[in-house]
Amino acid sequence: MEYPSKLLSEIVDEISKLPGIGRRTALRLSLHLLKQPENQSENLSNSILKFRKEIKHCKVCHNISDREVCEICANPNRNHALVCVVEDIRDVMAIENTGEYKGVYHVLGGKISPIEGVGPSDLTIDKLLKRIEKGNLQEIIFAMSATIDGDTTNFYLYRQVSAMSNVPRISTIARGISVGEELEYTDEITLARSILHRVPFEKSIKNI
Amino acid sequence: MEYPSKLLSEIVDEISKLPGIGRRTALRLSLHLLKQPENQSENLSNSILKFRKEIKHCKVCHNISDREVCEICANPNRNHALVCVVEDIRDVMAIENTGEYKGVYHVLGGKISPIEGVGPSDLTIDKLLKRIEKGNLQEIIFAMSATIDGDTTNFYLYRQVSAMSNVPRISTIARGISVGEELEYTDEITLARSILHRVPFEKSIKNI
Repeated sequence: MEYPSKLLSEIVDEISKLPGIGRRTALRLSLHLLKQPENQSENLSNSILKFRKEIKHCKVCHNISDREVCEICANPNRNHALVCVVEDIRDVMAIENTGEYKGVYHVLGGKISPIEGVGPSDLTIDKLLKRIEKGNLQEIIFAMSATIDGDTTNFYLYRQVSAMSNVPRISTIARGISVGEELEYTDEITLARSILHRVPFEKSIKNI
Repeated sequence: MEYPSKLLSEIVDEISKLPGIGRRTALRLSLHLLKQPENQSENLSNSILKFRKEIKHCKVCHNISDREVCEICANPNRNHALVCVVEDIRDVMAIENTGEYKGVYHVLGGKISPIEGVGPSDLTIDKLLKRIEKGNLQEIIFAMSATIDGDTTNFYLYRQVSAMSNVPRISTIARGISVGEELEYTDEITLARSILHRVPFEKSIKNI
């Protein structure tokens, strides 16, 4: 499509580089900005630049942060001997939202995926092993996605961690039927896992 | 949702102000930028700021443009006595893409919509009437959407233009069944219009 202006063509090019946004949507968004006060575009532009230039990764857990060490790792009220290993920053936010977890995290930055060409060295696995080496961890929780890549990562990590000299307790988040889900509509693998990993009844009602 | 960083919270706030983009999508887009080279974010940021600050509206037709007068209005090969009135900049682009139109445009900047509180004074109707007053136009084509608001705008414009002393020819784009559409599935109003506005057969095959 021909654009009536080079400036418009440029902004559409840039916005449509974002995932899931095509050129038609990019055009709609650009023209929307024209109808809004100029400072909205200024704020948007500044926040993008500032975010990309100034954001840091926590040097302990690799979560994104405004400082060298993130708020969670810097919080003395959290249990620093309990580490939850997650794929992504969004997983940290999801678990934090439950309000149930008082330990700290380790963000891998992805999962092992032979198809997408992501190997163990692309993730922060060596940093995790170094955290374990220091010897003051009690438990590591693997909280990966319930996908093939998630399982591959789980298995790889388990082999690495269990081969170390000072092995902390290793656990993985429970997989089973979701709250609100009906048995009839649950897939077989999930249902099978929820039977295999059944918990004592008294334990299950304690957390309701 | 709690964000682990103020910078992240700011960029999500700004991106989610765009129409059709929620906070979850804004978060996904922000984190995507982190994984891309820094200059992609710089280019995006710059193009937004530049577009909003430097874009002009053509002083003749009100299309957006990099200059005072847009490329179409400045083109001596176009027929400047033939003006197509459209609602929006995107309509100009759509008609230009057909490659069939050699006249010029007038962009109203919207349509009369009592529900959305858009009245005639919010549009560039007075500028259109001034263009007609100059007396060198031969024909005006109304190319509004086939909606109630489009029809309202059509009717209002027709009354204003036909009341002037030097009335050019006034026409409106044809409404009928779309190319490729089957009669059976066409709604009654469209089908009725396509019968009422039937064209001589010889004329219809000329443009195939």
